[in-house]
Amino acid sequence: MAEKTAVYPGTFDPMTLGHFDVIKRAAALYDRLVVAVAATSTKNGALFDAAHRVAMIREDVAGAGLENVTVETLDTLLVDFCRRRGVRVVIRGVRVYSDFEYEFQMALTNRRMAPEIETLFMMPSEQLAYVTASTVREIARYGGDTSRFVTPAVQRRLAELKF
Amino acid sequence: MAEKTAVYPGTFDPMTLGHFDVIKRAAALYDRLVVAVAATSTKNGALFDAAHRVAMIREDVAGAGLENVTVETLDTLLVDFCRRRGVRVVIRGVRVYSDFEYEFQMALTNRRMAPEIETLFMMPSEQLAYVTASTVREIARYGGDTSRFVTPAVQRRLAELKF
Amino acid sequence: MAEKTAVYPGTFDPMTLGHFDVIKRAAALYDRLVVAVAATSTKNGALFDAAHRVAMIREDVAGAGLENVTVETLDTLLVDFCRRRGVRVVIRGVRVYSDFEYEFQMALTNRRMAPEIETLFMMPSEQLAYVTASTVREIARYGGDTSRFVTPAVQRRLAELKF
Amino acid sequence: MAEKTAVYPGTFDPMTLGHFDVIKRAAALYDRLVVAVAATSTKNGALFDAAHRVAMIREDVAGAGLENVTVETLDTLLVDFCRRRGVRVVIRGVRVYSDFEYEFQMALTNRRMAPEIETLFMMPSEQLAYVTASTVREIARYGGDTSRFVTPAVQRRLAELKF
Amino acid sequence: MAEKTAVYPGTFDPMTLGHFDVIKRAAALYDRLVVAVAATSTKNGALFDAAHRVAMIREDVAGAGLENVTVETLDTLLVDFCRRRGVRVVIRGVRVYSDFEYEFQMALTNRRMAPEIETLFMMPSEQLAYVTASTVREIARYGGDTSRFVTPAVQRRLAELKF
Amino acid sequence: MAEKTAVYPGTFDPMTLGHFDVIKRAAALYDRLVVAVAATSTKNGALFDAAHRVAMIREDVAGAGLENVTVETLDTLLVDFCRRRGVRVVIRGVRVYSDFEYEFQMALTNRRMAPEIETLFMMPSEQLAYVTASTVREIARYGGDTSRFVTPAVQRRLAELKF
Repeated sequence: MAEKTAVYPGTFDPMTLGHFDVIKRAAALYDRLVVAVAATSTKNGALFDAAHRVAMIREDVAGAGLENVTVETLDTLLVDFCRRRGVRVVIRGVRVYSDFEYEFQMALTNRRMAPEIETLFMMPSEQLAYVTASTVREIARYGGDTSRFVTPAVQRRLAELKF
Repeated sequence: MAEKTAVYPGTFDPMTLGHFDVIKRAAALYDRLVVAVAATSTKNGALFDAAHRVAMIREDVAGAGLENVTVETLDTLLVDFCRRRGVRVVIRGVRVYSDFEYEFQMALTNRRMAPEIETLFMMPSEQLAYVTASTVREIARYGGDTSRFVTPAVQRRLAELKF
Repeated sequence: MAEKTAVYPGTFDPMTLGHFDVIKRAAALYDRLVVAVAATSTKNGALFDAAHRVAMIREDVAGAGLENVTVETLDTLLVDFCRRRGVRVVIRGVRVYSDFEYEFQMALTNRRMAPEIETLFMMPSEQLAYVTASTVREIARYGGDTSRFVTPAVQRRLAELKF
Repeated sequence: MAEKTAVYPGTFDPMTLGHFDVIKRAAALYDRLVVAVAATSTKNGALFDAAHRVAMIREDVAGAGLENVTVETLDTLLVDFCRRRGVRVVIRGVRVYSDFEYEFQMALTNRRMAPEIETLFMMPSEQLAYVTASTVREIARYGGDTSRFVTPAVQRRLAELKF
Repeated sequence: MAEKTAVYPGTFDPMTLGHFDVIKRAAALYDRLVVAVAATSTKNGALFDAAHRVAMIREDVAGAGLENVTVETLDTLLVDFCRRRGVRVVIRGVRVYSDFEYEFQMALTNRRMAPEIETLFMMPSEQLAYVTASTVREIARYGGDTSRFVTPAVQRRLAELKF
Repeated sequence: MAEKTAVYPGTFDPMTLGHFDVIKRAAALYDRLVVAVAATSTKNGALFDAAHRVAMIREDVAGAGLENVTVETLDTLLVDFCRRRGVRVVIRGVRVYSDFEYEFQMALTNRRMAPEIETLFMMPSEQLAYVTASTVREIARYGGDTSRFVTPAVQRRLAELKF
């Protein structure tokens, strides 16, 4: 029986339009998509804490009418997160090459820990594929215009940050 | 509604254990998997013609009891093959890096032609990921032992070839 | 004194929208741009012979009003082509990674032969960067729609080919 | 009209012989080259603060008689730096592959923010291409001999640092 | 005369099964292998300090009966470490691509400093090649099971850590 | 006991200065080095047949006084070649990235067939690392000067070829 639920994990600090594109694409392929936001805190260098990142994604998901998407905090190993929910499919976006290498390592490591879980890689639109969260943070730091790289919800919160 | 059918296209000249691993993994994630064998002929340099490649894969698929897998010849553009069958998911195995680059180009090209079709990348087992069809052909050419790289059905037919 | 002329060499079999994008970008940076079309013939596997490829590019260059662009056949080593014209800048588009590796080798080899010539790499638009001439040839072979990947002039000639 | 000025941005912490090679090559192709030194401070982990890095590069540029090169601090977004000076060409050296990937992302991001600015990539000499600023810092930390990797001006200041 | 001793340097924070596989392979090719453990301290972000890392590797080396392997701390430049011992061969494991790039830079830098020392790259088993020390640290941090990625000695000490 | 003999296999069509650099480096590390020249024939697209390639390498090896190097034709699987000679070390030069990927596949495939044979990768000088046999063939085809890329013996024979 075809898998009905997928998990899309990430740090999303902040969510870029590339991440959002993957969310929309994955939501179209599964009955239910869980976006899992890694619980790194601002103490450990994150720009936004996990609760804010979850809130921003929820706002955009709701705004786009993606009713089959939920957003949760990821504060365990990914394989444990999936097992507790009975999910067997992990979705990852692949942006560029070194990306894929890290993804390759993580997916094989996760498979060794949980052989029943499969990682599937998906490409965001090529018009969004090169945007990285770290670039967005850098542009925001210099007061640059981030509107072409993030959603309005994220842009608004970036503007409120004091650097 | 979750996608129920996926297409796994390739040349499979011949199918390696890595390819077969992807078939088994994909068959576990979808209600139905169509393996699409590119119709390159021996006149154009293929070791086996498409009919033989289809037959070998069918034999192994049956032997493994994969009842939800069918094997067909692909003699059109992949996007047309998928559209005629109403399939929106293409599965590709990613072995290594240059692989992924070619895959990236093809997937974006296919998306431009058929935006509703999504390509998902999946990793074969790391113990099989480095095996390539061209390596298998080279080993067979020198009369080497291919049993660790292909199924018994493929190995038998390789042994019958005259180089 | 700033260099005024650049050479953009390639096979262009056929010219893709990605190639054309590089031509337009390079033409905006230099007083004069020479597109140098490698003289591979259809006997050696080219889809179009060099004269046809030159003609197609000239048609598109004229159509776009790029008055500072000329198109010539390249039938010597690139470094000799540049030296005869007193050109010190070679422009190459970089699409993806393996591309860059080949480019790296060629540029260093050319530099060893002609230290005064510098190769500069430029990126086509990310919306065109993944299109390859070989993909275009494959789509044309299957009678697919190439209009999103090549100019109308190229598309017309592709349609006239018999495969 | 051919572009006459180019900007070569970087962190240069410290400038390596590879960086210096790119400066000399770019200075030969344009009427004027502006080396833009990112204003990261020692508080944020830089080995030398920006003022010292600017001073060292100026010393070497003067020593090499590169009269068309100026060195400035970069304390805004690169696209703003270029726009204020009316510069449309950014030069970046490409050392190795992962380099290029980061470069690719930055160049496309900058193009989205400032479509009129073009990034051109140039290769340093292959004899210098593998030297990285972080390697130089590590060698200096252990009291090793950095003379084959940096200019005498940089070497002198590295020797004065206390680790 | 064939080289009899090799040095295998690394951080080993902690040693993974991939590292241990390289140790065993290298020990089979040389009369004597020196594992050189970089002296990064926990103050600088290491999980284990160098003395503990040395102790763990020694325990595993003894347990495996590798009598020709010694384990030492590396607190100088690698080329100085080798020269003092008269060793001309450095062994490095290559896991994946970006790995190799860093390795390439280091090996060429070391060669410039000590032309008589040659770096040889070796592949760990493909079943272990994707495991990284940073992944192991992350799994340990979440209390996950590291037994498939490290030796029992390392696993025991990981379990004793408080995160 | 340290391995005393190594095999360095390749096509060498023709041997470049990069190949020759690897031969000299490997000859310095082992008591005996066997250069194994793949027996591809001019019928299958080689520029020189295997006997000529063997002769050229022998001439250069003798000229350089490398008394511990022998040159032989490789007309079986590499693992069989090594086993018949009791050799457990295969040396391969790594030039660039895509190179390494192919090397990675071959080495793992060979290891599966002959676990006792280890492949070690070595870097040629960075001043020679970008030269490829196919580039040399292309330069020779256009009558260009190959003297910076190959030995005098190879250059002389290239000059005698009729293209």
